[in-house]
Amino acid sequence: METTIGFIGLGIMGRPMARNLIQAGHRLIVLDRNPEPVAELAALGAEPAATPASVAEHAEVVITMLPDSPDVEAVVFDAQGVLMGLRPGTLYIDMSTVSPMLAERITAAGAAQGAAVLDAPVSGGQVGAEKATLSIMVGGEESAFQRALPLLGALGKNIVHCGGPGAGQIVKACNQILVALTIQGVAEALTLGMKAGVDPGKIVQVLGAGLARCGILETRGERMIAADFAPGFRSRLHYKDLRIALAAGQAYEAPLPATGIVHEMFKQMVISGRGELDHTGLLDLLQEWARPTQSA
Amino acid sequence: METTIGFIGLGIMGRPMARNLIQAGHRLIVLDRNPEPVAELAALGAEPAATPASVAEHAEVVITMLPDSPDVEAVVFDAQGVLMGLRPGTLYIDMSTVSPMLAERITAAGAAQGAAVLDAPVSGGQVGAEKATLSIMVGGEESAFQRALPLLGALGKNIVHCGGPGAGQIVKACNQILVALTIQGVAEALTLGMKAGVDPGKIVQVLGAGLARCGILETRGERMIAADFAPGFRSRLHYKDLRIALAAGQAYEAPLPATGIVHEMFKQMVISGRGELDHTGLLDLLQEWARPTQSA
Repeated sequence: METTIGFIGLGIMGRPMARNLIQAGHRLIVLDRNPEPVAELAALGAEPAATPASVAEHAEVVITMLPDSPDVEAVVFDAQGVLMGLRPGTLYIDMSTVSPMLAERITAAGAAQGAAVLDAPVSGGQVGAEKATLSIMVGGEESAFQRALPLLGALGKNIVHCGGPGAGQIVKACNQILVALTIQGVAEALTLGMKAGVDPGKIVQVLGAGLARCGILETRGERMIAADFAPGFRSRLHYKDLRIALAAGQAYEAPLPATGIVHEMFKQMVISGRGELDHTGLLDLLQEWARPTQSA
Repeated sequence: METTIGFIGLGIMGRPMARNLIQAGHRLIVLDRNPEPVAELAALGAEPAATPASVAEHAEVVITMLPDSPDVEAVVFDAQGVLMGLRPGTLYIDMSTVSPMLAERITAAGAAQGAAVLDAPVSGGQVGAEKATLSIMVGGEESAFQRALPLLGALGKNIVHCGGPGAGQIVKACNQILVALTIQGVAEALTLGMKAGVDPGKIVQVLGAGLARCGILETRGERMIAADFAPGFRSRLHYKDLRIALAAGQAYEAPLPATGIVHEMFKQMVISGRGELDHTGLLDLLQEWARPTQSA
């Protein structure tokens, strides 16, 4: 069934996602500050729009895929924002990773205009976006989720309704906390082992076969040992995601002591010029700290 | 081939390990402060001994399985210690989890008497000890490792020669670091999710299917949600293991910032009376911290 979908944000993630929706037979209205991906999608049949409000006015379903909470806030609440164009019956799905509190605020604002809102952040990265194998964590009303399911099925595979408004963002934050702490654990273990003169390949082998086994060791262990930190998922984005997790921890009064430390690690990744490295590049930072200082 | 094995330390781990060695056809000389497991093993054919020195004097291979570094230090270096009984050609295998620096020291002391020494800590817990499915991380000379392999095969399954003296203890410390940080990550994720009102079952489901997947979520996720913290692996022992990891980090100059935090968490587990809980009980501590204080 063809749906008219407004798609705002055609970056590394949004561009292939919009492409997949066109391939699934939907009519797209697109908007991005960068003219190049707009031109590409227009060549595939999408219709460019001038403002978020006009995208929403002409669409049955609006999707945003933007870098951070302030971007989503601006695109939704500005004078020419999505909210201005939402009509009763429109479904708005924000697939960006933003704060759960913002997701709740947008859902309330949409409801005031009779529109349904879902928060639906993803994991799986650029490859998942291109191959339509994203995991999608959805928060919002069950009826809206059922309506969104066929569209989301063109974008990802593991699509889970996590709960009410904001629940998708909460589960995404939980995911980013656990991934960050797992990477930090692998990085500290390898740093200790390498400083003590143990073959890091043995560490990956032994730890990967027991209770310490994890997706990070499995998919990135060998590359970490080889100091291959090509992204993957960039450290500056994981830094942003942990800022969201800590803000959620403040809002919902959840103590997150180790997340606090790893947030500082990712801050230092950015400060030290490692923001574009894969998040497993935490190992590179620890290795630098572990290098003995030369006396003058 | 029957070997005369001296076995010192018949606790939760050592007792079933000694039993498995007898079942594999070996002759055992045993020693423990507690008369009860000594009596049990004597009934199975083992010969009780009076001191660590006399165990070593009459054995071809000596194995120790003791709670902590000071216990091993005393059993090895005291006046009636293992070292007094080691002869040229004896093989001494310490399977306790102790500091890598102590393992190096014992290996040097053994070599001075012509004895070969291996550090061979295990993971897999009481169940692994009983079912002979332990993972065994071995440090020391290759020739000693080859000699030990048939005996270790009666105790465990995944037996890896990690490197020279102390390397087994280093890899065990690396393992305990990663397991601890993974548990802390799961505990912080669940605490945030539960405080925000999200069904924790959804969190376990979604995180377990992606990059955040890990042995802890897989084997303990559901029990953590159900607040079932029956051990398993006791928090006071993981606290001890992280003390070893931090001491190794000091000795080998490896920065371990998040391990430092989780070491403090396990310290608080013990302080707050949670030392006998499974190490996943970190969630219980965070939950207590997350509970709003009643005003008087």
